[in-house]
Amino acid sequence: MATGTVLETVSADDARRIIDAAAAKAAEIGQPMDIAVVDAGGNLKAHLRMDGANIGSIPISINKAYTAIAFQCQTGDLQKNTRPDGPIYGLNDAHGGRLVVFPGGIPLVRDGKIMGAIGVSTGTIEQDQEVAEAGASAY
Amino acid sequence: MATGTVLETVSADDARRIIDAAAAKAAEIGQPMDIAVVDAGGNLKAHLRMDGANIGSIPISINKAYTAIAFQCQTGDLQKNTRPDGPIYGLNDAHGGRLVVFPGGIPLVRDGKIMGAIGVSTGTIEQDQEVAEAGASAY
Amino acid sequence: MATGTVLETVSADDARRIIDAAAAKAAEIGQPMDIAVVDAGGNLKAHLRMDGANIGSIPISINKAYTAIAFQCQTGDLQKNTRPDGPIYGLNDAHGGRLVVFPGGIPLVRDGKIMGAIGVSTGTIEQDQEVAEAGASAY
Amino acid sequence: MATGTVLETVSADDARRIIDAAAAKAAEIGQPMDIAVVDAGGNLKAHLRMDGANIGSIPISINKAYTAIAFQCQTGDLQKNTRPDGPIYGLNDAHGGRLVVFPGGIPLVRDGKIMGAIGVSTGTIEQDQEVAEAGASAY
Repeated sequence: MATGTVLETVSADDARRIIDAAAAKAAEIGQPMDIAVVDAGGNLKAHLRMDGANIGSIPISINKAYTAIAFQCQTGDLQKNTRPDGPIYGLNDAHGGRLVVFPGGIPLVRDGKIMGAIGVSTGTIEQDQEVAEAGASAY
Repeated sequence: MATGTVLETVSADDARRIIDAAAAKAAEIGQPMDIAVVDAGGNLKAHLRMDGANIGSIPISINKAYTAIAFQCQTGDLQKNTRPDGPIYGLNDAHGGRLVVFPGGIPLVRDGKIMGAIGVSTGTIEQDQEVAEAGASAY
Repeated sequence: MATGTVLETVSADDARRIIDAAAAKAAEIGQPMDIAVVDAGGNLKAHLRMDGANIGSIPISINKAYTAIAFQCQTGDLQKNTRPDGPIYGLNDAHGGRLVVFPGGIPLVRDGKIMGAIGVSTGTIEQDQEVAEAGASAY
Repeated sequence: MATGTVLETVSADDARRIIDAAAAKAAEIGQPMDIAVVDAGGNLKAHLRMDGANIGSIPISINKAYTAIAFQCQTGDLQKNTRPDGPIYGLNDAHGGRLVVFPGGIPLVRDGKIMGAIGVSTGTIEQDQEVAEAGASAY
């Protein structure tokens, strides 16, 4: 039986750089944030709760990043279809409380492959998305 | 390695006084309540289920207090934005079943810092909020 | 009703410095680690999974830090008493799966008060403890 | 369909008196405690975390009281039989993390019926038991 080591996708250096870029944007707009980065398997790689950011946004930021991996899309893309009149209404009730269906979660893509994701939470959804985009741009 | 003791925010005396004030208001309006107080970290400090209050409101009262810590606001402030047509619809599905997005949870503030929170449940949301306010006023 | 903001204990800068010191020690001994820092309330402040560290150690590192807050001690201090012949055998089954009763979790103490905690996991317990101590020393 | 109200067993006044008696004993021995009282259905009636008591003992105290109801005995009575060489080894793994199998949980009995239970945690098991007995004696 061959032994092996874990397959790394987003590296610790990547995660650090992505979080720093997101935090810089958050500071620029004056809105402290929870920022999470997960790898291609949806598992947490790094997290930072900026001073003043929400405690409740710890799981929300991590779950936004997870959701972006889980459904291969931005979390905001799930919003319309999961509303009460949408075709997959109830999706976010069907996964044990881990799915987020509003903006702030973005896949990290390289050569057409999703290598990880970033999730951002505490601000308005527009702010969360802007900060997530700033982080994703650093990948 | 230096040893230390837990950092107290809301004290046991504070919690007792807050619960007594809330329970007095609840008795005055004739609506028994579950009343919970959590500290700044969202951890339970004290709880009382008045005679006649709901068993199902044990976690609701505790989670209302937690939510007020987690999002640095009154739980009622989350109601509009989490409705089916709101921008963060689905928030309360994304946190493992611990968030309450209707009135009855209020932060306990001292010198501009949230030191704890009270959560009240069993009555109508107007009653829950009124009793929570009576408790918070005793802090 | 006065509004307020979250009470910060371990700051984001503290958490970053603690994680960097722990990661430097981990690199020095050649053992990649999951490293988590929580605040005084036991809520996640920052996390880093170094390249090669265990995915399974994400919750273990976070839960080690939580346990150090929860019981006001190093996690290793719980080991002897929770063994099969110990007086509190079963403790770690009685808290919903969040307690870790072996080394690697250490409180962060300032002026006699526990302001946060670090948790480290992936290596042997001796390595986890050594890296956690290196991190705690940077506080 | 007849309507009804909840069947009360341990009253709020009982719970308050029991907690006060337990807290007085805890203060006397110089060991702050988490103290919980549940009703005959095992549902939380009241809780107090004394200043300096463990955050981790919030669920432990509540679960001790629950366990005393759940198995109609003192929690300490479960200790021997649930050890690795005992006949019901594994019991505490079989209930979703809610059972405590060491001292500190005691049923509250009236006229031969278990009307509720008290659970105490943070000290040694001898201290927890002594404080629980002081509380139970006030019923």
